[in-house]
Amino acid sequence: MNIDDIKDPSQIRGLDIAALTDIAAQMRAALLNRTSKKGGHVGPNLGIVETAIALHYVFDTPEDKIVWDVSHQAYPHKMLTGRARAYTHDDRFGDVSGYTDPAESPYDLFTVGHTSTSVSLATGLAKARDLKGRHNNIIAVIGDGSLSGGEAFEGLDTAATLDSNFIVVVNDNDMSIAENHGGIYRDLRLLRTTRGEAPVNIFRAMGFEYRFVADGNDLTQLIAAFKEVKDTDRPVVVHVCTQKGHGYAPAVADKESWHWQPPFDIATGHVYADDDKTETYASLTARFLLDKMQRDPRVVVLSAGTPMNIGFNPAQRALAGKHFVDVGIAEEQAAAMSAGLAKGGMRPVWGVASTFVQRAYDQISQEIAINNAPAVILDVAGGLGALTDVTHLCWFDIALLSNIPGIVMLAPTCLPEYTAMLDWAINQTDHPVVIRTPNVAPATLPIETDTDFSDIDTFSQVRAGHGVAIIAAGHMMGAALQAADILKRDHGISPTVINPRFVSGIDAPMLSALSEDHRAVITVEDGQKDGGFGQKIAAFYADRPMAVRNLGLPKQFMDRYDPAQLARQCHLTPEGIAARAVEMFK
Amino acid sequence: MNIDDIKDPSQIRGLDIAALTDIAAQMRAALLNRTSKKGGHVGPNLGIVETAIALHYVFDTPEDKIVWDVSHQAYPHKMLTGRARAYTHDDRFGDVSGYTDPAESPYDLFTVGHTSTSVSLATGLAKARDLKGRHNNIIAVIGDGSLSGGEAFEGLDTAATLDSNFIVVVNDNDMSIAENHGGIYRDLRLLRTTRGEAPVNIFRAMGFEYRFVADGNDLTQLIAAFKEVKDTDRPVVVHVCTQKGHGYAPAVADKESWHWQPPFDIATGHVYADDDKTETYASLTARFLLDKMQRDPRVVVLSAGTPMNIGFNPAQRALAGKHFVDVGIAEEQAAAMSAGLAKGGMRPVWGVASTFVQRAYDQISQEIAINNAPAVILDVAGGLGALTDVTHLCWFDIALLSNIPGIVMLAPTCLPEYTAMLDWAINQTDHPVVIRTPNVAPATLPIETDTDFSDIDTFSQVRAGHGVAIIAAGHMMGAALQAADILKRDHGISPTVINPRFVSGIDAPMLSALSEDHRAVITVEDGQKDGGFGQKIAAFYADRPMAVRNLGLPKQFMDRYDPAQLARQCHLTPEGIAARAVEMFK
Repeated sequence: MNIDDIKDPSQIRGLDIAALTDIAAQMRAALLNRTSKKGGHVGPNLGIVETAIALHYVFDTPEDKIVWDVSHQAYPHKMLTGRARAYTHDDRFGDVSGYTDPAESPYDLFTVGHTSTSVSLATGLAKARDLKGRHNNIIAVIGDGSLSGGEAFEGLDTAATLDSNFIVVVNDNDMSIAENHGGIYRDLRLLRTTRGEAPVNIFRAMGFEYRFVADGNDLTQLIAAFKEVKDTDRPVVVHVCTQKGHGYAPAVADKESWHWQPPFDIATGHVYADDDKTETYASLTARFLLDKMQRDPRVVVLSAGTPMNIGFNPAQRALAGKHFVDVGIAEEQAAAMSAGLAKGGMRPVWGVASTFVQRAYDQISQEIAINNAPAVILDVAGGLGALTDVTHLCWFDIALLSNIPGIVMLAPTCLPEYTAMLDWAINQTDHPVVIRTPNVAPATLPIETDTDFSDIDTFSQVRAGHGVAIIAAGHMMGAALQAADILKRDHGISPTVINPRFVSGIDAPMLSALSEDHRAVITVEDGQKDGGFGQKIAAFYADRPMAVRNLGLPKQFMDRYDPAQLARQCHLTPEGIAARAVEMFK
Repeated sequence: MNIDDIKDPSQIRGLDIAALTDIAAQMRAALLNRTSKKGGHVGPNLGIVETAIALHYVFDTPEDKIVWDVSHQAYPHKMLTGRARAYTHDDRFGDVSGYTDPAESPYDLFTVGHTSTSVSLATGLAKARDLKGRHNNIIAVIGDGSLSGGEAFEGLDTAATLDSNFIVVVNDNDMSIAENHGGIYRDLRLLRTTRGEAPVNIFRAMGFEYRFVADGNDLTQLIAAFKEVKDTDRPVVVHVCTQKGHGYAPAVADKESWHWQPPFDIATGHVYADDDKTETYASLTARFLLDKMQRDPRVVVLSAGTPMNIGFNPAQRALAGKHFVDVGIAEEQAAAMSAGLAKGGMRPVWGVASTFVQRAYDQISQEIAINNAPAVILDVAGGLGALTDVTHLCWFDIALLSNIPGIVMLAPTCLPEYTAMLDWAINQTDHPVVIRTPNVAPATLPIETDTDFSDIDTFSQVRAGHGVAIIAAGHMMGAALQAADILKRDHGISPTVINPRFVSGIDAPMLSALSEDHRAVITVEDGQKDGGFGQKIAAFYADRPMAVRNLGLPKQFMDRYDPAQLARQCHLTPEGIAARAVEMFK
């Protein structure tokens, strides 16, 4: 059977193992076809091909419900549910997102993309089923890496108390995005080496029945296990040992790099982007911090399972040694441990993507901010273009973090300012500091930047002008300076340009002084306008005769948006800013 | 030894068991003295008296570090560290907060108040110790109820990988605030009944060594256990079985009610507030939802370990039966399970205190909002006066939740509007809805309210006027109406008064129309101004000739503030609002 012809999984239910094996081979080729051209989650999907087939083979989907954790491993599931052409036909790539999406298929239950949610979501489905008196199977698939997240534990803790059918498929490939970290992984290893026989069993301890599948890339074993647990009336864990990257040698050889890859050559495994040696914020950060550690033994770098966010590849992690801590995918732990490290006299620096920092709001507010723990949080890839999936948007961070009392949130405009801010943040011990960097390669700008940021919430005027002032936060400074050039050249307007440096407060004296010879202020930020930086300035001037226009990103969940187009729509371009200034100057 | 004379715990280290037992008795009397007059956490503190004594007896505090989870059980610890008079002398009650506070004592490591943080915080201290090459003991105390929180699991997962001293004292009193819920509690029960001998052991499964203490109110057993683990070079769990409320019969008999109590009569256990039968938002909510369940079997009420927040006492929980779900102290699970229930066709209603809703920001954003899951979140006790401790402030919720795309956040002005909003929110399935209620007894107001809220972000004009408009969210409507009366009576000003109903968006047409015959707008909310509702209105008018003044609460962590005084300072009173209107009207 050609996988392009699979409209729904019932079509595979009559097949024998040989036919299913052939389908698996076609699926792997399709996976590589798409990911090699478009990029994507290579390793997780290659590893779970057989599990996806066996699940749809044994269970009566969509009446039986499968919830995929993170759903970055759902490509095989999508192929088995009528969407194979999105992998086999290049012109159909746009048909599917990289995650499950109910708008695509009734087989996709939720739009998800953050880690450790599948069990919790599935407990809701199970409870609903029970209350309705139905008896379909509820299956939550979760990777071993995702088990380190607290929400997964909370979900398992509730699931174990369900007095009804609930099946957790633990896809154990002995890897998180990078290697695993955490006490439970010793137990998973013990279970693997004892073929599930060890009496010390985290799942049994939580109240689950337990079934072990030694080779999770073997269809026969998987089908037998799933048949055995199908229609169970108890919560059960099926512990499936898979190989991340299975069937593609480069992905097996370097599991971390091949978790997600940009386009590559299938034959050689060569990743085209690897030829680009341009410095990024991430590579700079790792280099800076490794150097800083040499000079200051108090520096400890933390990651919640995503060390490459701040450029720490395996070699650099080894160099950092005990001064690098990966807590697994556990942002709450990273935040709270940072508070503890700061209390213990260390200088913790936690690097976390903008989309994931929100997983630790309470810990940043309580453990860090209330305790005024001088932790440093590197909020990376904030703004446009880093991650365009609806589950991974990076523009809610300013509104979220800047409104926590005591948090000093800095937005560097360019590389020299970033390193200066980072150095200052580590050296000082008066404040918790968040430094927000964008995804794009660092710019140098024709402006002077500072090295001391201890005068909190003071802005810096980088161009003196009159009439209209442009206050552009962080990365938007480049566009603001170009806008100022356009205004001068085309309209004879000399705007004042201000680098606020801080997005967590306002410089009231400077804003008051602007009133003297300005009648309009434009704020520019690559974050959500609602609750963001610009609204603080609008509120400041709200009962004064100053016209204010806030430019920023919408309060909206957008999926696979076009960054350049969105920037234009939101006037976050030199031309857009200039045009707004002309409007206001009229 | 009189406990008033204990300046530091070294003074108790030479004592024999009889003397320590006498100290325990004095401490219990002191606990009851304070809590009977001032209210407080009665049961948790009575239960942990001996544990606190044994810890300070065995360990070299403050060189050895104890981190208390939630720290609502830290009263005995405070007595042993020089603060007993805050419990024995009524005029000294103000010396201490209800939680640990580094400003009070070097024995208090962190200001904490939310659940499940102690292990995570302590891992930071332990890592700092190891990097500094020191060898003091690090002890995290955590209650069995707190173990259900994901952060506790994340902390344990990291702690188990520390290759050094780390002691977790699990204070197991077989209770959360209410009864425990979750799979791990079966294991704790098994461990209790087997005196720690059962091979199925969640702590061992996570990688800890394990020591069981059968009677955690027996000083001899505790001291022996702590001596045994002192200076261990491995992570170890000491599982201590205590009795919540130990030594005070009423607190033992009704552990849930006595978790926290307002003032009571020691001799009889009579709680004075129980005489007050005034209806509260909580009691109303439970009554409404129980009634609603009868008519709509899709209704499922959820709590994350705090059922009394929405008035569900044990009898009402029993009445609700399978339609009431307590997930333990696990807000992330409550949010995600709500999303799953909504997907499964149920109508989930999750009640959560304003200070705790922030623990599930990512889940509300991702699982609920991105999926547009029509879950109903009752954000209770928002605003002033419910909880005045710095760790339990209730005024960050509007800025936090109202800026999540797709979340419809309603703020009822009075009781009839609340029940109408709740009914509408349950009946509709188009939006996730947050309803924010204050702590105070529900008011009825001389205004008309609606029963249909499907026209999202439309405001309601409750008094027509001109010149100045007062837009008062939720509970602040009462003060706004009184302010309008003052303005008319004393100043001849007839303000327009608007009930926005929604705090998650603005009614642009109505705001535009106001421009015709108003020159000033005052927004009033009992939430933080920064990022809040009023700033959206300030931003709307920012480039229009309308003066706007935002009234609201400060971006500041305040400890044990005086609600009435803070309301006056922030002009959140009839007189304050009226005075601002007069200023702006000049």
